[in-house]
Amino acid sequence: MKTTDQWNFISTWKMSRGGVLRASRLLGEGQRLERAVAEAVKAVEDEASYCSVGYGGLPNRNGEVELDAAYMDGDTLKAGGVMAVRDIRNPIEVACALSKLDRNCFLAGEGAMAFARKQGVAFRNMLTPAAMERFESAVAKAGVPERQEAYDGHDTVCVIGRDAGGSMACGVSTSGLFLKHPGRVGDSPLIGSGFYADSRVGAAAATGVGEDIMRGCLSYAIVERMAAGYPAQEACEAVLAAHVEKLRQIGGSCGSMSVIAMDREGRAGAATSLDLFPFVVGNAAGECRVMAVGQADGRMRVFQPDEEEWKKYEGD
Amino acid sequence: MKTTDQWNFISTWKMSRGGVLRASRLLGEGQRLERAVAEAVKAVEDEASYCSVGYGGLPNRNGEVELDAAYMDGDTLKAGGVMAVRDIRNPIEVACALSKLDRNCFLAGEGAMAFARKQGVAFRNMLTPAAMERFESAVAKAGVPERQEAYDGHDTVCVIGRDAGGSMACGVSTSGLFLKHPGRVGDSPLIGSGFYADSRVGAAAATGVGEDIMRGCLSYAIVERMAAGYPAQEACEAVLAAHVEKLRQIGGSCGSMSVIAMDREGRAGAATSLDLFPFVVGNAAGECRVMAVGQADGRMRVFQPDEEEWKKYEGD
Repeated sequence: MKTTDQWNFISTWKMSRGGVLRASRLLGEGQRLERAVAEAVKAVEDEASYCSVGYGGLPNRNGEVELDAAYMDGDTLKAGGVMAVRDIRNPIEVACALSKLDRNCFLAGEGAMAFARKQGVAFRNMLTPAAMERFESAVAKAGVPERQEAYDGHDTVCVIGRDAGGSMACGVSTSGLFLKHPGRVGDSPLIGSGFYADSRVGAAAATGVGEDIMRGCLSYAIVERMAAGYPAQEACEAVLAAHVEKLRQIGGSCGSMSVIAMDREGRAGAATSLDLFPFVVGNAAGECRVMAVGQADGRMRVFQPDEEEWKKYEGD
Repeated sequence: MKTTDQWNFISTWKMSRGGVLRASRLLGEGQRLERAVAEAVKAVEDEASYCSVGYGGLPNRNGEVELDAAYMDGDTLKAGGVMAVRDIRNPIEVACALSKLDRNCFLAGEGAMAFARKQGVAFRNMLTPAAMERFESAVAKAGVPERQEAYDGHDTVCVIGRDAGGSMACGVSTSGLFLKHPGRVGDSPLIGSGFYADSRVGAAAATGVGEDIMRGCLSYAIVERMAAGYPAQEACEAVLAAHVEKLRQIGGSCGSMSVIAMDREGRAGAATSLDLFPFVVGNAAGECRVMAVGQADGRMRVFQPDEEEWKKYEGD
């Protein structure tokens, strides 16, 4: 997956394709990388049919939509994020604003919502009738499961971008595990676990069961591996395989985990513990492809699924 | 700082000495490591005169005490934590309970408090008259500073323990930066940044300005360095020096950061960006010494301060 274009994106799940197209257009128009990454994430947050991020997101066990988001600037290593916030239309916007600060960059719950109000960002009721229905039907059928799993087919949106000047950034947004405990914080807004970006090295981000992702600080570990000279694809595979193997040796079963990465040259990588994990790569040549990575014959295989295969990964 | 005793502790700041003595006694009585580490942290949480942790902790800019705590079991890599909670007498107890779960291990704000209530842990008003006075006098004198600094002389309590069987664990607790924004989450409850423990390798923890610590995922980075064969002391020094140098090159000033670590053999390490950072080492031989590390002649120096020097690091 070597690319030599002027700018590059990689993002999680097929649902992120529209956002990456928009981000690519914005960079082409001379917009800054932060704006492009944020707009890519916002495109997913705003789409009600993507039920694991932003508007229409998966409710917690109280039937409330609680959202996490974070943004990291790879030039400055400055990052910001919100955890367990409600009613904020675009949590990624608040994360971007927080990443500019020297202190108080990560805010949770009511305090984060108070900051967002003062920033003047838009609020809205993030619970859609479809999400409420999904909640009611799941609870009526099986109650709250002891052990929530990541939503099948799409989950956290993570967007990594690199502009023509070599600056890198990463934005993530999620409603977290369906039927999570109120206040639950997954890996997404945790620096080093859900995301990490260093323009001098590369960037990485993760999606899946946050509790298991964070036990290995997967995003930081992948960036460190790239710093040690591994290409992005090898870094993703090596870090994920070692972590899954360690968790298996320890004895507990481990939840699904998928990672994406980009090195400082714009080369992309991805790995997954799922059978198949779709992701999107975009570049300045106007290409914006849905790719997939999965286990086949005991090794990780990256490929471009055909249209029929794509359908499996549609946002519902 | 090589030790060959049956069990070992290392902890941040002189204020942690009483807790480590208690933890050492508990291990001697056959108690489990988790209990010992939690009791060491609780001793600091319960002491009102330690104004940066638990009861009597530093208020946020609204005059409320908001607390963070986390616990990690190095055998299982399972971790739990609470962020921005109020009125919980011993946040570390809740963190320990959460670390047993497979999902929903990190909880923020109201959701975390609801979990704590269901657990039946003790609640109390954590704001002491002395803390309120400190708050009022600081705000009257200078208002809320743009850029809060870590409290001088002590800050987050971090306790790393290793039992006779080689199991390792880490517990941390803090009220965070004085006059922080409500809901602010520092490095302390963030896995990989404020703490990390892997019994197969070692453990590390951090104290200081969380926003700058987390930009380098310092605890995970130190454990990774030990995995690569560095002794604990060299790992602490190398990771902290590289991070401070990187932040300086990027251009921003960086806040104070101090780290402690222990490798799987029980050898301790510490490093700091302060002139002097006191920490505590304890072992099964009944030793429990206040040590200090600091910059001298351009290199990190570890030493045992005499009684006169200690006084500088008393909890006030």
